[in-house]
Amino acid sequence: MDLKAELKQLNMKIDAALSRYMPAEDVAPPVIHKAMRYSLFAGGKRLRPVLVLAGCRAVGGDEESVMAAACALEMIHTYSLIHDDLPAMDDDDLRRGMPTNHVVFGEATAILAGDGLLTRAFGVLAEEGLRCGRSPALVLQVIAELADAAGSMGMIGGQVMDMESENKQIDVATMAYIHAHKTGALIRASLRIGALLGGGSVEQVEALSRYGDHLGLAFQITDDLLDIQGDPEKIGKPVGSDVKNNKATYPALLGLEKARQEAERVVQAALDSLAGFDEKAELLRELAQYLLVREN
Amino acid sequence: MDLKAELKQLNMKIDAALSRYMPAEDVAPPVIHKAMRYSLFAGGKRLRPVLVLAGCRAVGGDEESVMAAACALEMIHTYSLIHDDLPAMDDDDLRRGMPTNHVVFGEATAILAGDGLLTRAFGVLAEEGLRCGRSPALVLQVIAELADAAGSMGMIGGQVMDMESENKQIDVATMAYIHAHKTGALIRASLRIGALLGGGSVEQVEALSRYGDHLGLAFQITDDLLDIQGDPEKIGKPVGSDVKNNKATYPALLGLEKARQEAERVVQAALDSLAGFDEKAELLRELAQYLLVREN
Repeated sequence: MDLKAELKQLNMKIDAALSRYMPAEDVAPPVIHKAMRYSLFAGGKRLRPVLVLAGCRAVGGDEESVMAAACALEMIHTYSLIHDDLPAMDDDDLRRGMPTNHVVFGEATAILAGDGLLTRAFGVLAEEGLRCGRSPALVLQVIAELADAAGSMGMIGGQVMDMESENKQIDVATMAYIHAHKTGALIRASLRIGALLGGGSVEQVEALSRYGDHLGLAFQITDDLLDIQGDPEKIGKPVGSDVKNNKATYPALLGLEKARQEAERVVQAALDSLAGFDEKAELLRELAQYLLVREN
Repeated sequence: MDLKAELKQLNMKIDAALSRYMPAEDVAPPVIHKAMRYSLFAGGKRLRPVLVLAGCRAVGGDEESVMAAACALEMIHTYSLIHDDLPAMDDDDLRRGMPTNHVVFGEATAILAGDGLLTRAFGVLAEEGLRCGRSPALVLQVIAELADAAGSMGMIGGQVMDMESENKQIDVATMAYIHAHKTGALIRASLRIGALLGGGSVEQVEALSRYGDHLGLAFQITDDLLDIQGDPEKIGKPVGSDVKNNKATYPALLGLEKARQEAERVVQAALDSLAGFDEKAELLRELAQYLLVREN
C-alpha cells in the first residue's frame, strides 16, 4: 500500500464531506461560519476521521456510511484545538504555520466557533444516523460513546489535568492519565465508532479499542519527540515549547532514548492488537508503523 | 393551579435528575466537575426543562420519560451562560447574585466547564434515549433538532449577532433576529422536544412551536423591561446594564409603554396557540401569563 497516496485520497473525501456538513461562509451570521471553516480547513492531518474510516474498513463495513461520523470526530478535534489555543488556555498564536482562530477572529468568536463545531458534530451524527443504514439504537450508542470520550471524564478531563500539571513535577502515572484522556480518548473513540457503525463484532470492536489505545500513546510520544527533535518548518510551529513551558513529556521523564524505545514498543503492541484481522486492516498497520518515522 | 407550588415541585424533580446525570464533585478531575455543578446549581429558574415537561404534559406524555431531555436543555442553557459571561464576551462578574464561573474557577476552567456541559447534554440524551421507551429514530430527530437550535444557525448565531450589534444602531428586524436565535431557539426546542418525546401529533408539535416562539419573545421583552424597572435585589444583578452597554432592547427601540403593550400582545398570541389543547396545557397557559407579572 502507498500510504501517502491512500491518505491523500481519503483526505480529499473527508474534506469534501466536511464542507457538505458545514454551513457555507455566507450563511448568517457569516463571521461564525468563516471562523468555523477557517480552523476546520487549516490543513489538519485528519487522523481521527481516517481512523474512523480505517476502523470501518477493517471490519468490512461501508466507508461511505461512516463518513458523517468521521466528520463529527474531526469537528470535535478542531473545536478542542481552537479552545486549547485561547489566551486563557495555552495562548498559542500559531498552529500548523497559520495564525490561530482567536488571532484572526478575536477571542469571543473563537470561543463560539469552538462551541459551534462541537454542537454541529452531534447534529451531523444524529441527522446522518437516520440515513446511514444502521439501526438508530446503534447510532445512539455511538453518540453516547463520543460524548463520553470528548467529555469531562474524557478529552476535557485530560486537558484539565494537563493545565493543572503545568509547572509541577508530575509522575509517569499522571502523564499517562493526561495522554490517555486528552488525545487518547478521541483516537480510541474514532476506531470504536468506525468499527461499531461498520458492523464489527464485539471482539473486533474490543481489538480495535486496544489498537486505538496503543496508537494514541505512540502518537503522543512521537509528538513529544518531534517537539524536541523536529523541524519547525515541517511541523508548522516552533519546537521546544514543551521544555519552555516545563511540560511533563515522555522524553523529559524517561530520557530521549528510552522514549524512542517506548514508542517502538507501543507501536508493536498496536500491531499485535490487529493479529485477528486480515488484509483489510492494512491501512491501520501502515498508520501505526508510520508514526515511528513521521516528521510532522 | 398554584403556579409557584407547581414550579417548586417540578424544580425539585429537575434538580434531582440533573444531579443524577452529572458526575459527582469528587470524580476526576474534581475541579471540572465542581465548576460544572457550580453553575448548574446556581439557582436558575429551570425555565427550559420546565417547558420540556410542560410540553410533554400538554400532549399527554409521560413526564418521567422526558426528564433526561429536560436536563439536557438546562445543561446547554447553563453552558451558554458560562461562556457568555467570560471576559472575552460580556465580562460579567455576577449572575443571580453569585460570582460567575470564571470568577470562581478561572477562565480556562470556565471555558472547559461550558464545553463539558454542552457535551454531556448530548451524552445524556443519547444514553437515556435508549431507555425512554420512544423509538431510537425519534430520539435521533430530537438530538438533531437540539443541535440545530443550539448551534451556529441558532443560539450561537444569536449570540454572534448580539456581539456584532453592540454599540451600533440596529433596527427592529435585527433585534428580532437576535432574540429569536439567542434565547428563542432553545425555548422553542424545549417545547418541541417535550411534545415530540411525549408522543404529540404533528399538529400539536407545530402549535407548541408557535407557543414557544411567542413565549420566547415575551420572555425577552419582559427581561428587557426588568433591566430598566426591576429590583436589583430580586433579579440578583444590577439593573441598567443594557442602557450602560448601549444594547438594543425593545424598550429602547419602542419606548417603555409600547414595549409593555407588545409583551401583552405576544403573551396573548402564546395563549391563542394553545387553543386546541385541553386542561393538560394549563401549566403552559399559567407560565405565559406569569411573564407579565414576573419580578425576576
